[in-house]
Amino acid sequence: MIRYLTAGESHGPKLTGIIEGVPAGLPITEDEIALHLARRQKGYGRGGRMAFEKDKATISSGVRFGKTTGAPIAMQMPNRAHEKDDSNWPKVLAKEGNGDDVDPITVPRPGHADLTGVQKYRYDDIRPAIERSSARETAMRVACSSIARKFLKHFGIEIGGHVTRIGKVGYEQPWEDVRDRVDPMLEDGAETIFKTADESPVRCLDEDLTQQMRDLIIKRRKEGSSLGGHWEVVVTGLPAGLGSFVHWDRKLGGQLAQAIIGTQAMKGVQIGQGFESGRRHGQVVHDEIIHEDGTFKRRTNRMGGLEGGVTTGMPLIIRGVMKPIPTMLTPIDTVDIHSKEKTDTRYERSDVCALPRAIVVAESVIAPVLANAFLEKFGGDSIEEIEERLDQ
Amino acid sequence: MIRYLTAGESHGPKLTGIIEGVPAGLPITEDEIALHLARRQKGYGRGGRMAFEKDKATISSGVRFGKTTGAPIAMQMPNRAHEKDDSNWPKVLAKEGNGDDVDPITVPRPGHADLTGVQKYRYDDIRPAIERSSARETAMRVACSSIARKFLKHFGIEIGGHVTRIGKVGYEQPWEDVRDRVDPMLEDGAETIFKTADESPVRCLDEDLTQQMRDLIIKRRKEGSSLGGHWEVVVTGLPAGLGSFVHWDRKLGGQLAQAIIGTQAMKGVQIGQGFESGRRHGQVVHDEIIHEDGTFKRRTNRMGGLEGGVTTGMPLIIRGVMKPIPTMLTPIDTVDIHSKEKTDTRYERSDVCALPRAIVVAESVIAPVLANAFLEKFGGDSIEEIEERLDQ
Amino acid sequence: MIRYLTAGESHGPKLTGIIEGVPAGLPITEDEIALHLARRQKGYGRGGRMAFEKDKATISSGVRFGKTTGAPIAMQMPNRAHEKDDSNWPKVLAKEGNGDDVDPITVPRPGHADLTGVQKYRYDDIRPAIERSSARETAMRVACSSIARKFLKHFGIEIGGHVTRIGKVGYEQPWEDVRDRVDPMLEDGAETIFKTADESPVRCLDEDLTQQMRDLIIKRRKEGSSLGGHWEVVVTGLPAGLGSFVHWDRKLGGQLAQAIIGTQAMKGVQIGQGFESGRRHGQVVHDEIIHEDGTFKRRTNRMGGLEGGVTTGMPLIIRGVMKPIPTMLTPIDTVDIHSKEKTDTRYERSDVCALPRAIVVAESVIAPVLANAFLEKFGGDSIEEIEERLDQ
Amino acid sequence: MIRYLTAGESHGPKLTGIIEGVPAGLPITEDEIALHLARRQKGYGRGGRMAFEKDKATISSGVRFGKTTGAPIAMQMPNRAHEKDDSNWPKVLAKEGNGDDVDPITVPRPGHADLTGVQKYRYDDIRPAIERSSARETAMRVACSSIARKFLKHFGIEIGGHVTRIGKVGYEQPWEDVRDRVDPMLEDGAETIFKTADESPVRCLDEDLTQQMRDLIIKRRKEGSSLGGHWEVVVTGLPAGLGSFVHWDRKLGGQLAQAIIGTQAMKGVQIGQGFESGRRHGQVVHDEIIHEDGTFKRRTNRMGGLEGGVTTGMPLIIRGVMKPIPTMLTPIDTVDIHSKEKTDTRYERSDVCALPRAIVVAESVIAPVLANAFLEKFGGDSIEEIEERLDQ
Repeated sequence: MIRYLTAGESHGPKLTGIIEGVPAGLPITEDEIALHLARRQKGYGRGGRMAFEKDKATISSGVRFGKTTGAPIAMQMPNRAHEKDDSNWPKVLAKEGNGDDVDPITVPRPGHADLTGVQKYRYDDIRPAIERSSARETAMRVACSSIARKFLKHFGIEIGGHVTRIGKVGYEQPWEDVRDRVDPMLEDGAETIFKTADESPVRCLDEDLTQQMRDLIIKRRKEGSSLGGHWEVVVTGLPAGLGSFVHWDRKLGGQLAQAIIGTQAMKGVQIGQGFESGRRHGQVVHDEIIHEDGTFKRRTNRMGGLEGGVTTGMPLIIRGVMKPIPTMLTPIDTVDIHSKEKTDTRYERSDVCALPRAIVVAESVIAPVLANAFLEKFGGDSIEEIEERLDQ
Repeated sequence: MIRYLTAGESHGPKLTGIIEGVPAGLPITEDEIALHLARRQKGYGRGGRMAFEKDKATISSGVRFGKTTGAPIAMQMPNRAHEKDDSNWPKVLAKEGNGDDVDPITVPRPGHADLTGVQKYRYDDIRPAIERSSARETAMRVACSSIARKFLKHFGIEIGGHVTRIGKVGYEQPWEDVRDRVDPMLEDGAETIFKTADESPVRCLDEDLTQQMRDLIIKRRKEGSSLGGHWEVVVTGLPAGLGSFVHWDRKLGGQLAQAIIGTQAMKGVQIGQGFESGRRHGQVVHDEIIHEDGTFKRRTNRMGGLEGGVTTGMPLIIRGVMKPIPTMLTPIDTVDIHSKEKTDTRYERSDVCALPRAIVVAESVIAPVLANAFLEKFGGDSIEEIEERLDQ
Repeated sequence: MIRYLTAGESHGPKLTGIIEGVPAGLPITEDEIALHLARRQKGYGRGGRMAFEKDKATISSGVRFGKTTGAPIAMQMPNRAHEKDDSNWPKVLAKEGNGDDVDPITVPRPGHADLTGVQKYRYDDIRPAIERSSARETAMRVACSSIARKFLKHFGIEIGGHVTRIGKVGYEQPWEDVRDRVDPMLEDGAETIFKTADESPVRCLDEDLTQQMRDLIIKRRKEGSSLGGHWEVVVTGLPAGLGSFVHWDRKLGGQLAQAIIGTQAMKGVQIGQGFESGRRHGQVVHDEIIHEDGTFKRRTNRMGGLEGGVTTGMPLIIRGVMKPIPTMLTPIDTVDIHSKEKTDTRYERSDVCALPRAIVVAESVIAPVLANAFLEKFGGDSIEEIEERLDQ
Repeated sequence: MIRYLTAGESHGPKLTGIIEGVPAGLPITEDEIALHLARRQKGYGRGGRMAFEKDKATISSGVRFGKTTGAPIAMQMPNRAHEKDDSNWPKVLAKEGNGDDVDPITVPRPGHADLTGVQKYRYDDIRPAIERSSARETAMRVACSSIARKFLKHFGIEIGGHVTRIGKVGYEQPWEDVRDRVDPMLEDGAETIFKTADESPVRCLDEDLTQQMRDLIIKRRKEGSSLGGHWEVVVTGLPAGLGSFVHWDRKLGGQLAQAIIGTQAMKGVQIGQGFESGRRHGQVVHDEIIHEDGTFKRRTNRMGGLEGGVTTGMPLIIRGVMKPIPTMLTPIDTVDIHSKEKTDTRYERSDVCALPRAIVVAESVIAPVLANAFLEKFGGDSIEEIEERLDQ
């Protein structure tokens, strides 16, 4: 079983991650991890942070001569902002001292964990909530997940995502239009999707929508507002029979949903046709079973590759929503936590729309879940051992 | 930490559940559990099973003189069908013998765990997949969860749900229309919602929609099709500060999402405005903070009571989708698992639309998650001990 | 991963257990489970309970036609005492009512969970602590574990235990004398050990010691005292490579130790030579490696089959201590929890020495741990699937 | 709940640890952590590594202005050997390249995870097993645990350990002699024990035994052998009621046992009188209950502070055994994993007896277990919140 912990503040010296339970013998390099870190940093609608934040995760254990050893893999990723910024982060986030010369943040931003952080941890300075709840943390989650992703890829399982909506701009028929476009691409594996989407500045597969999304982002930026949107991630190559229906917490869909909604700003998730299936009736929702080329297939894939919480062998389709970024140039009302007086939200440098970047996070965080379901079925302490089983 | 396991087949002798980790001293009776079991059995659109299936969970441990002792609580619930039905269940599901005189089921129904069960467990008879993946299991989940629910209620936390859509019939503006109707009811606690909804045969708070939903169910039944729909569950009384943003798997939203998507037929879940928030922009999505009556509140509650995976003190709003029931009178294509020949799906007695009943399951399964978040903050081995802390 | 929960009070209506995660297709019958339950009930030094307590676990789910289905397996075991005894258990342990007509127990017995139960759960009647902490619970742990044990047996892994000391009577050289006697028996599998030991009324492999142990038990019974002792359990057939050294909580030894010390009255555990190895020096402690018959072996097995928390392929040897039973006819000092006055302990019918029976519990509780280590390496949802992998 | 992961190889660039779940507001400095790291490095019988291995854990997250924030705490600790040694570690443990110019280790040392590592992970070079299973890893476990230990200390719970036996040298009566010496020291808290023991080069509280242990270590070093021994750790200040008897995996003793046996070279563990209690009879084993100074106490503490897996309020006494170090100057037989030929073990620089250092590890690894039991009872997200509850 793969498990991982991440640590680190947004403007602290570094992010740290440890991932444990990866079988021995998996080929992995820092460059392969850097690929998804770089993808996570690209995307239209970014604010000013991009320039000084070229992420690279440095592995310091668990990998030897280009392969995992089975031991825990530790990674570090410095926050360039920590030293270079004029915001004096080493002082603001000093681990020692009493902080007397650092002004506390006392104005919580709605939509962030600012106020809830204060309520939970009794902070009298919101700073620690800002720092840890920031989406910066997702960089290390992507790094850890990239190793699980490489494991899946080794066994032919590919993951790819794309943006389907930003604010009011999106596919007219969110299910049919997307299927028409995406499904034919899947023959070559789901990575085709992200490679294609990566060519769009907003990671949308449709050119016209891409242009409209950019325009909308420009408009909302001018207004000092922000945007979120909808996304889809597809996984190809999953064998049938991962997950289980025998107990609720073993259903793969539920585990995937936790990984997604456990990600910053994600407020909804659906498998396959999802919410749309509630608007239709059974005859047009369920996927007829056929037998072709020696295997069971489905004529359609409205269930998104999961039935009873178990993979069907069809592509996994998972879709979600990211809320608009809470930090906005045009302030909204809030209250100072000390004075209890009404005030405006303060602005911290921020993207207008983080969805094109967040796609990479959504692609990533499901990888450890899928790798664990795979390991549960095939077992094994080494890649070699697993390969033998699959070759049987 | 509360944890629980359920066991039992749909037509086996009984369902069994064990829930562990409930503090000592919680007043609980079998009648309180039976209340939600009865609610789960009611609802328009049911098939013929209702008559012989009056559920009552019998407690056999962990409760003495009307109060929990802190020890694991075991419950049993017989399946009346097991003995009364003409389907000869004791023979079909015999734990001994070789089954030679029982015909195997070899035709998988799309949308159920029939084929995935075969693919995962190598069944040559689909029966075990049908039996365990059946929604019958949710009866025991409701029973176990009802104890967690009583725990929450003891500390003023109430849960209530209602149906917002069945097929094409639903609120026109799923967010605003529902808020207008539901939010004023919350002053008296969220149980007001379910008590009101229970008066509708489809558990919809709106009379007109109720009538249209009934009509639609009748129509789809005649066509031999089936229906799912959308639901909303609201929780009032949650203190601010439950859950955490410091690590992804401690975010309350993610844990709730797993509980929901880990439930039969649920294909999507959203917190607060959810998917709708992706269509709007930040200025109209985030909830302004105010300070009133000595506490922090929000002008709106579009985030559904969670920010950064932590409760805000506002009502928790969670919404989801149930897919149409896969079992339908009008068959669709499938394949015999032995012959690999194309065939029609076979019909087992079934509801046309299970959503009005499933609402009770959705209300229930989130209760252990919330109780654990509450216990994490307040600790405590006995109700008395927790009460003292809250009285401080 | 196998997990299980047990529930039930010592004199309540029944014990209940649910075990989840057992692969499909494992042949299992209630008789196979009853075997170890019966073994757990036999043994010299028992008190009066034996007559009315013939345990049989009734399976109510997860098994069909003599094989597991992969679904959770629920079992029930009635407590005959509940109805037959003159102690009026149905009234004393009523789940309803207010208990006004039941005298509370207010005198805690040292050595039991009586006082700690009061301190933890704020009981004003010790009864619930007595009921749940009683060794009666181990009957259901044995039942659940017996299924894991059958799984291991299916793949050639056998478990057998025996008593090495009761009070002052035991092997003179606890390591060498026992190895000389036991190791030659292992060729036929570790079940040979328990089958042989079962012929001794105190489950000791040595006839002379058996007689001395019986004599000692008679002596201590007359004095109104009680006895514990030392035991050894051996497991044969374990493949090398189960467990892991890469993280502390994956070390098999630690997991086994938790299972043992998590058992009533067990106050110590050691792997292989254990404490004795601290008295010797390295040259005579470590096990030289040889290569014979195409495989790596050890000249000796002082490490007890585990190196670095991983199985070596040699027999697993685990030894432990059971403290004397706290309930004794001759009272010792205690204090009434209400009056705080000094008083004598009260006597409840009890064994003088439970070790011959507890051996079966020790054999059993390690089975789920070993089965999980096996499943982690070999994976698999069905016995058939695992067999194929082992046949490679 | 506190959880932590460690990573890092013995001669890799660094060790890394992340500890998650520590409440906010706990005062902690790197110096407090360094204290136990330094203690772990001291001790007679060390080999040559000591000179270049002055450990300090650098915190890079989760602590601000001298207090925890509630966020995960990451720590790094460089391995000085990595760069300074002449063994060319950066090349030998390179994460990239193909390792063609690095000679594989093919001779497994009995007693280490060398051969089991090969058997589990299919290494063709034993190096990764040597590196990860090394006791070097315990440095990071001590660092992580030191934070839990500080948490306990904040609430008056102290931990202290000492050596009771090295090889054939030890207390004559391991229970009575040690109690006579240790128990009077506990009035001032268990840290008195370690502070006193730290003055002995072998961390033994008795001067005569200290001298004999030193002499024995010198003797065994000359012979090229090695030594292990017995240790005791005592914890004072634990409130009654931590842990639980209601389910086996919640018994505190079992959780402690896993932490101990999950530590390098630990082959046995016992609570209180432990194995000795199996040699005695009930009348002289159980601890009479008295009521004094407004609280329940015990006349003796043979149960070691745990009854039914729950703390009694008396000091926790846990004792264990460390096996002799497997690496010895005088070789023993082993087999080359490639050639399968018999050969001598190779020598790597090593201590003769690591027990005086390992005491610090034993003290440390139980701290997270105890902190979690404490948090389960008292809950709380911040030190302030917990303090209020205890002040009630």
